[in-house]
Amino acid sequence: MTRLLHGINASPGMAAAPILIYSNSQPVIEESTVADTAAEIERLQVALQGARTELEQLRDTVKAKLGEEKAEIFEGHLMILEDPDLIDAVIEAIQTESINAEYAVQTASSSFIEALKQMDDEYLRERAADVSDVSGKIIRHLSGAAQTDLSQLTEPCIIVANDLAPSDTAKLDMEIVKGFITEIGSRTSHSAIMARSLGIPAIVGVGTLSGDIKTGTLALLDAVSGSVILDPSEDQKQEFAGKKEQYDRQQAELAKWVNRPSLSADGHRVELAANIGKLEDVQKALDNGAEAIGLFRTEFLYMGRSSLPTEEEQFISYKYVLEKMNGKPVVIRTLDIGGDKELPYMELPKEANPFLGQRALRLCLERPHIFRTQLRALLRASSYGNLKIMFPMIAVLSELRDAKALLEEEKAKLQGEGIVVSDTIEIGMMVEIPAAAVSADLFAKEVDFFSIGTNDLIQYTMAADRMNETVSYLYQPCNPSVLRLVRMVIEAARKEGKWVGMCGEMAGDESAIPLLLGLGLHEFSMSASSILPARAQIGGLDRKRWSELAEQALTMAAQDEIQDFVRSQS
Amino acid sequence: MTRLLHGINASPGMAAAPILIYSNSQPVIEESTVADTAAEIERLQVALQGARTELEQLRDTVKAKLGEEKAEIFEGHLMILEDPDLIDAVIEAIQTESINAEYAVQTASSSFIEALKQMDDEYLRERAADVSDVSGKIIRHLSGAAQTDLSQLTEPCIIVANDLAPSDTAKLDMEIVKGFITEIGSRTSHSAIMARSLGIPAIVGVGTLSGDIKTGTLALLDAVSGSVILDPSEDQKQEFAGKKEQYDRQQAELAKWVNRPSLSADGHRVELAANIGKLEDVQKALDNGAEAIGLFRTEFLYMGRSSLPTEEEQFISYKYVLEKMNGKPVVIRTLDIGGDKELPYMELPKEANPFLGQRALRLCLERPHIFRTQLRALLRASSYGNLKIMFPMIAVLSELRDAKALLEEEKAKLQGEGIVVSDTIEIGMMVEIPAAAVSADLFAKEVDFFSIGTNDLIQYTMAADRMNETVSYLYQPCNPSVLRLVRMVIEAARKEGKWVGMCGEMAGDESAIPLLLGLGLHEFSMSASSILPARAQIGGLDRKRWSELAEQALTMAAQDEIQDFVRSQS
Repeated sequence: MTRLLHGINASPGMAAAPILIYSNSQPVIEESTVADTAAEIERLQVALQGARTELEQLRDTVKAKLGEEKAEIFEGHLMILEDPDLIDAVIEAIQTESINAEYAVQTASSSFIEALKQMDDEYLRERAADVSDVSGKIIRHLSGAAQTDLSQLTEPCIIVANDLAPSDTAKLDMEIVKGFITEIGSRTSHSAIMARSLGIPAIVGVGTLSGDIKTGTLALLDAVSGSVILDPSEDQKQEFAGKKEQYDRQQAELAKWVNRPSLSADGHRVELAANIGKLEDVQKALDNGAEAIGLFRTEFLYMGRSSLPTEEEQFISYKYVLEKMNGKPVVIRTLDIGGDKELPYMELPKEANPFLGQRALRLCLERPHIFRTQLRALLRASSYGNLKIMFPMIAVLSELRDAKALLEEEKAKLQGEGIVVSDTIEIGMMVEIPAAAVSADLFAKEVDFFSIGTNDLIQYTMAADRMNETVSYLYQPCNPSVLRLVRMVIEAARKEGKWVGMCGEMAGDESAIPLLLGLGLHEFSMSASSILPARAQIGGLDRKRWSELAEQALTMAAQDEIQDFVRSQS
Repeated sequence: MTRLLHGINASPGMAAAPILIYSNSQPVIEESTVADTAAEIERLQVALQGARTELEQLRDTVKAKLGEEKAEIFEGHLMILEDPDLIDAVIEAIQTESINAEYAVQTASSSFIEALKQMDDEYLRERAADVSDVSGKIIRHLSGAAQTDLSQLTEPCIIVANDLAPSDTAKLDMEIVKGFITEIGSRTSHSAIMARSLGIPAIVGVGTLSGDIKTGTLALLDAVSGSVILDPSEDQKQEFAGKKEQYDRQQAELAKWVNRPSLSADGHRVELAANIGKLEDVQKALDNGAEAIGLFRTEFLYMGRSSLPTEEEQFISYKYVLEKMNGKPVVIRTLDIGGDKELPYMELPKEANPFLGQRALRLCLERPHIFRTQLRALLRASSYGNLKIMFPMIAVLSELRDAKALLEEEKAKLQGEGIVVSDTIEIGMMVEIPAAAVSADLFAKEVDFFSIGTNDLIQYTMAADRMNETVSYLYQPCNPSVLRLVRMVIEAARKEGKWVGMCGEMAGDESAIPLLLGLGLHEFSMSASSILPARAQIGGLDRKRWSELAEQALTMAAQDEIQDFVRSQS
């Protein structure tokens, strides 16, 4: 039966492929009494075998794709699956307590995990996350809800999920996954940002889907108009093919802007940069004509694994990006974890308001050993390209000074070890907390550059969680207060001769670009796929004229009024 | 054994009394199998009788203290306790399923509650909260953890708790409770604010207390130095008595300021007002020389009950305060629920970051029927005194305009009904969201006054949850960015000829008062107990000099520097 879905265009594009329903939720385990314990133990053995086969396949694929070393983690998981201390405890619990296997696995692994966490040896403590992974796998096999492994897909598909976690999207193979559709989310949710950075079409926030939609159903995903047709008619398929052809033609037109400089109509030059979240994104950035990396999110190095990345692992990644960009600027942001981003192996306190909690630099300053490792890796990589280091979530000067002091300490240590460190690394900070924007003049004296992180700056300025749909009407990039703060930051930097970029979603938003150009923003950093449309747009704008228009817009009282004004002048 | 505790002075004062350990946590219920179901049913009957006695006492006390009408809710609770639909279901579950009584009560009442929630009749839906209250009481009696009823205390005591909820503090009888001590909390947590408003000494954040501390132990609570001595020696008792005498003498000295005007040394007049949270606070405000009520939090009307307050109930409360203040200004803030404040009978969505969610005016605009009732009550009360209405949590102009439009509609309706409404009600707004401060010039054209709510303004400006201890170093009232926002608001209002007050904790903070006076703040609203010290302090400050010093302070880069400067100049 044909169905039509509507949602938010999170990443533009068009794709036709069968859907794959993906669920990443853990089943809820309840204790129950079983009459036939022998049958229950047999059920456990079947699940163990299923988990074993799954892990072996995963090990082999990863070995083939990423090499022996990356596959080792799965060898470890297989060993846990055969660990008599764990498995015997489960079997004994089933036999003596007549409980269901799921509950027995959960209980036994929980006490195993607790015991590991008490260990003095850091290596053993980190195994707790592995035991948790493996017991989760066994339980999913027991409950028949064997999870689709997103890194194991072999047929082209469009993924349909309630939401995709960063760790899910990190696994996606772009040759296979043609797009995705999520039930919840907004343009600024992680899955949306990730889709744009991967350059695959995505529609988010389509609402709860009925249970009878099945994997394998053909979907026509139109992330230009924001609609999806499931199980389309022949006519609909033809119409879609026509639209897709037109879309592809427009994209080809845009491609002509790849090698042109970013100039306004009156010849004012700006820099169009890409936000990236993993190594594969660099090529995509270059393909889309990025003149720089304006934001390299380093969180991917810490996610989808069971322990912290080593200095060497980080060094290799940073060096790769710097070399690949071949002298073009690369702004690397230090770890921004906490808030809505968690790491399974790092115990973060549960917070009532995580967005107002101990995240990013706050956490790094509190756990300097983690931070120092990253700083050393950055410093070591600095001699391979044009590195700029950026600190996130700074509210007060003392945080900036503390971070810079740690950086200087590590630099001195490395130089003492005879390692070459670049002498021209620029040090900057995100401006994403209202306090930093309001006192930008104070900060400008102590940094080389600012990058305005509008996603967070808007949410704090408006006191509205950008993930919370009930207050989404307050998430206003062109709100007068937000624009005034942006102007304050640019003015403060100009007076100190420093440059200002913007790496929030707003930098690539066509309704904001004329104002940002007018206010004097130097660098616009955005999803790779937004760069060419932005360059084409800027090519048609007169910078001097927009400088005056922006001042006029900033006297207006509401976002609506400002947006209407920009439209009427464009 | 003598013990010494240290914590944060939440409310100044000194008291000596036996402690009362108070726990407001619900026991966790687990299902278990019982062999003797007859014995279990008997255990249930004993608990039912215990709950009945407790409720009857509660009804009688409330009837004696507050009158027949207020006691009716307990009649309803007693009827639920005898409802055969509920009780028979519990007994049957014990008999047929051999389960423990706690679990049977929980299960039966849950399905009862669910059924009630489905009802079309609003009255019946609201009974769900009553069933939940009653089943909680039964379960506590079953588990032997019969809760202390804070409204039932008869002997002087100092309450010791993990934390006190607003609904707990609302019940406290000030004749009996001499102070309180909580394990968690900060100067700005609700229990701290409540303690100041009640004028009883309190120390919060003393950390987890060991389990062997018992009710009845004598405590010397010194909420001036921030220490508590449990089970003191004779010497300690004597020393404490001496200190208390000195403290009482100082208080007597301050009392001389009660009837003086609030004048700076050079004769500049300001207004010192009180923040109040319940009707009893008005007398305390007057006793402490309040020239106005700068913030009347109306949440108390909605808390500690099982349904929304009626227009008539609210009208009576507002009228009471207005009449009691006898022509002095009374700023009443409309409902500020959500965030960390919940109502049991109002289903609010669970939010990932409630402080950035649908709270206060946002919620009121979304549920206008609740809001209209409050507005009507306010308008009807307006002819009994000098009423000013204030809207909380405004981020954009449209919210202010929507709220004012609803107020105008209700005013027209009331006038149509022949009810007298004052024509001189001032309409103002809280400035507690950075967006409102940054665009204060736009808002100033459409209000009669501002009141700066620093508790929230600081937390949003710094992106630091004021309840989260890991980021408490960022909760900086004298941070340059915060002070700049305060100046922006005062300047914007001055240009439009409007007045500005402040009703956050900062207004009563002696290290901030000189700067606020210098910046031109008109009204300082604070806990009643802070008014006299503030008046004495202002009496010693030269307004013109502090006007210049404040400008100097605002060029400084950090709170430390500013605070040192203020100290050195004071």
